[in-house]
Amino acid sequence: MNVPYVPDPSLDLVMERVVDVPPDLVWLAWTSPAHLRQWFCPRPWTTAECDVDLRPGGMFRTVLAGPAGERHQHLACYLEVVPGARLVWTTLLEPGFRPSPRQDTSGVPHFTAVITIEPHGTGTKYRAVAMHRTPDGRAAHDAMGFHDGWGSAFSQLVEAATGWSRTH
Amino acid sequence: MNVPYVPDPSLDLVMERVVDVPPDLVWLAWTSPAHLRQWFCPRPWTTAECDVDLRPGGMFRTVLAGPAGERHQHLACYLEVVPGARLVWTTLLEPGFRPSPRQDTSGVPHFTAVITIEPHGTGTKYRAVAMHRTPDGRAAHDAMGFHDGWGSAFSQLVEAATGWSRTH
Repeated sequence: MNVPYVPDPSLDLVMERVVDVPPDLVWLAWTSPAHLRQWFCPRPWTTAECDVDLRPGGMFRTVLAGPAGERHQHLACYLEVVPGARLVWTTLLEPGFRPSPRQDTSGVPHFTAVITIEPHGTGTKYRAVAMHRTPDGRAAHDAMGFHDGWGSAFSQLVEAATGWSRTH
Repeated sequence: MNVPYVPDPSLDLVMERVVDVPPDLVWLAWTSPAHLRQWFCPRPWTTAECDVDLRPGGMFRTVLAGPAGERHQHLACYLEVVPGARLVWTTLLEPGFRPSPRQDTSGVPHFTAVITIEPHGTGTKYRAVAMHRTPDGRAAHDAMGFHDGWGSAFSQLVEAATGWSRTH
């Protein structure tokens, strides 16, 4: 574990859940493209493409596809990879730690995500945090439906994981 | 070593030097606050304060002081720390990987820095890269005197290092 997450309610959106899915499957869900595509995007949208280069500085890229043929690419860079426990990435940087040229006001506001996975009985205590540049960024992401979106997606993860064996 | 640096001449400023200073002293110069303060800021400005928390997500903070009492704080976050070989940090993130609220247009444009230190005979082949968000950011940093500033500072490093023993 590296630098601990320090909450800032004026800048952060937080989603927490305790679920009956073992930590290794939650980790797999986040880091294997084949598994991620099964849950990452709330239906009826789907995850059409996913690239995972799982190391600090590596690419995390998804293309989300809408029912009317929309396609939205999301490009981010991993910052911290602690297998089975913590995954941090940011949209402010692109692969190779290169600064993103995207303006904060186009699309989803820039954020750093911190996913924490802790054992809880046979299941997992899960926490997803999105840290924003400004209170406006947080508010905009909130208004776009952060809680519904990340919540629905995580419910899809739980549902999909019932079909995954513990040996993957 | 993690993700290699891929040059982009439209976005990057690059300074390279071969100097007769051993790699371990160049590393020390960048990572020990007591040593960094001796060279980091081109005279007559000085480095009044320096905080180094040398790990990914850790703080890199300096306060530069001008002859007329000016004080400029620079706050950044380490991304990659490969002792003796490579140091990467960015101003787009603050400690704990938290997004910086600072606008790209206030002060020095945001950048990610990649410092590479390679043995070269008894000395060092040194490269400092600043990767910017946009060509405008690169041009603004260039106009602010990137080459003069980083060049003068590095000359001060070489000068100061003559007083440092190899055992520090």
